[in-house]
Amino acid sequence: MKKNIRVVQYGVGPIGAGIVRLMREKKALEIIGAIDKDPAKAGKDLGEVVGAPDAPWGVIVSGDAGKILGQKADVVIHTTSSYLPNVVDQLMECIEAGSCVVSTCEELAYPFRKHPQISARLDAEAKDWGVALVGTGVNPGFVMDKLVLTLAAVSQRVDSARAIRIVDASNRRLPLQKKIGAGMTVEEFGAQVAAGVIKHHGLPESIAMVADGLGFAVDDITETIQPVVAHAPVKTEFLEVAPGQAAGVHQIARGFANGVEKIYMELQMYVGAPESSDTVELAGNPDIKLTVPGGTHGDVATASVVVNCIPAILAAPAGLRTSRDLPMCFFPPSAKP
Amino acid sequence: MKKNIRVVQYGVGPIGAGIVRLMREKKALEIIGAIDKDPAKAGKDLGEVVGAPDAPWGVIVSGDAGKILGQKADVVIHTTSSYLPNVVDQLMECIEAGSCVVSTCEELAYPFRKHPQISARLDAEAKDWGVALVGTGVNPGFVMDKLVLTLAAVSQRVDSARAIRIVDASNRRLPLQKKIGAGMTVEEFGAQVAAGVIKHHGLPESIAMVADGLGFAVDDITETIQPVVAHAPVKTEFLEVAPGQAAGVHQIARGFANGVEKIYMELQMYVGAPESSDTVELAGNPDIKLTVPGGTHGDVATASVVVNCIPAILAAPAGLRTSRDLPMCFFPPSAKP
Repeated sequence: MKKNIRVVQYGVGPIGAGIVRLMREKKALEIIGAIDKDPAKAGKDLGEVVGAPDAPWGVIVSGDAGKILGQKADVVIHTTSSYLPNVVDQLMECIEAGSCVVSTCEELAYPFRKHPQISARLDAEAKDWGVALVGTGVNPGFVMDKLVLTLAAVSQRVDSARAIRIVDASNRRLPLQKKIGAGMTVEEFGAQVAAGVIKHHGLPESIAMVADGLGFAVDDITETIQPVVAHAPVKTEFLEVAPGQAAGVHQIARGFANGVEKIYMELQMYVGAPESSDTVELAGNPDIKLTVPGGTHGDVATASVVVNCIPAILAAPAGLRTSRDLPMCFFPPSAKP
Repeated sequence: MKKNIRVVQYGVGPIGAGIVRLMREKKALEIIGAIDKDPAKAGKDLGEVVGAPDAPWGVIVSGDAGKILGQKADVVIHTTSSYLPNVVDQLMECIEAGSCVVSTCEELAYPFRKHPQISARLDAEAKDWGVALVGTGVNPGFVMDKLVLTLAAVSQRVDSARAIRIVDASNRRLPLQKKIGAGMTVEEFGAQVAAGVIKHHGLPESIAMVADGLGFAVDDITETIQPVVAHAPVKTEFLEVAPGQAAGVHQIARGFANGVEKIYMELQMYVGAPESSDTVELAGNPDIKLTVPGGTHGDVATASVVVNCIPAILAAPAGLRTSRDLPMCFFPPSAKP
């Protein structure tokens, strides 16, 4: 058995940096390289780029993906874009280096409906190279899909499923507060939605995963994006929202089978939410409900899910996997590879 | 691909009967035989024994395990005893017939500490025959272990874990109400505990599974069993409990690492409980909590978990598996094998 699991980080933005810091705590992991084209990061020490107290680490961030992937890591952690077509070449390069991949690309979490050809291509290539890849994170990847399917393990019959995630974004990073439109006028918000800028990615992917896992013949997935409008002023560390302005997003996605709504997913992510929470409800035999009071913190939880997934993806059969297939669990810091 | 998954039911008590009724609803499953030595059942039609509205099914319950197992089912559902040493020969016979096994034997759920030799023997035999076996159910197998480990997927660090299950037994079957000591004097209850009659099995197994999954070096597992004493009269469909009598069991199990409590599990199962609930709490980064208000109904959920586990055990690598390894999910009634 190898002494260490050799890891490369592909993309050192805020999520990638959080993942890197968490990976550093796992004895079984050796971070052998990092890729980022940003000139503010390339050439710098990875520990310094991610703000680690024990920096420098002696691992230099490189803009040359081919060079770093050529080191043939056991697994590449990929955090560069939400859109699968944008990253398919990056993923193929990882696969062809013989590395497993865990990616936060939301469209990779369950890509079979929106991108059937890319899915088939990635699956075939991964099988050819004997590696597995998965797109995961907290949402999509956990709270609105894996947790729904896990709860369904105690169900004799499921008629419909609901997942509601309310996130108070008040203490989240500025890019996230901006990304959800906090502080915009309702008109600006609408324009940003129309331009595709404001959007949480992944609800249709979660709907598709749940539909297939519960055996629902969902033939139509809809999605709406509206602002949560502030009724009172909200002030965060970074910005202020006046009454009447957008405080964040309110997205609703639905899955219909033959005109009947079978899956409902609602995401409210805004500054000033009274309380965060995740709720899953299954109607059937029995009716059953699960709540995570206080919710799961998106950035913290995404880093967790991704890093905790590393042993599972290394153990998985070759090919394109999803969090539906994998036993989601914890990666103890002291674990041996 | 085969048209059907061929299943044998081994043990047709209340839990086995519930499993059989649920299996009947899954299009992919063909129940080819059933084993029970009880003369009141052997020789009768399985559908009639389990009270199915569409009986008879043309499947006769047999007391001859060898004959039924000789039909080489794809999977045997085994529900005969809580004690692993009592059933190891039955499990070996299933394995040697080339069948995968899903068993409700609580001690099989995570048998490595209490029964290391039997565990090794079952694992080796299963690998020799190319089949997988698992012990599972709602508890152990789901609410106090798998759900804990699944929730830990969003954790960066886990310092300790708690699982608390409160079950109102008022509407459960009479054997269960008797098994938990409802209606006994406190002295009778104590005697029945001492005799090993009153006990919910599986808490130490859940502790061991969680300890290994979270990387806790648990070196001591303790367990206490006390009565829940009724303060007011309780009346169920089957029995009455007077104030001062036992209404049910209160079990607490703890896992210690080097003298420090790392895992706490508490089970209260009694008639007249104000509300059933399952709660999981992880202390660490982040602190996180999950609740199932109303709880998971033991008999309904055990049948669910067992039947839903069938596709996963058929897909699992050969050997002795646990619910820790398997993706717990739902088995859609319309699913094809």
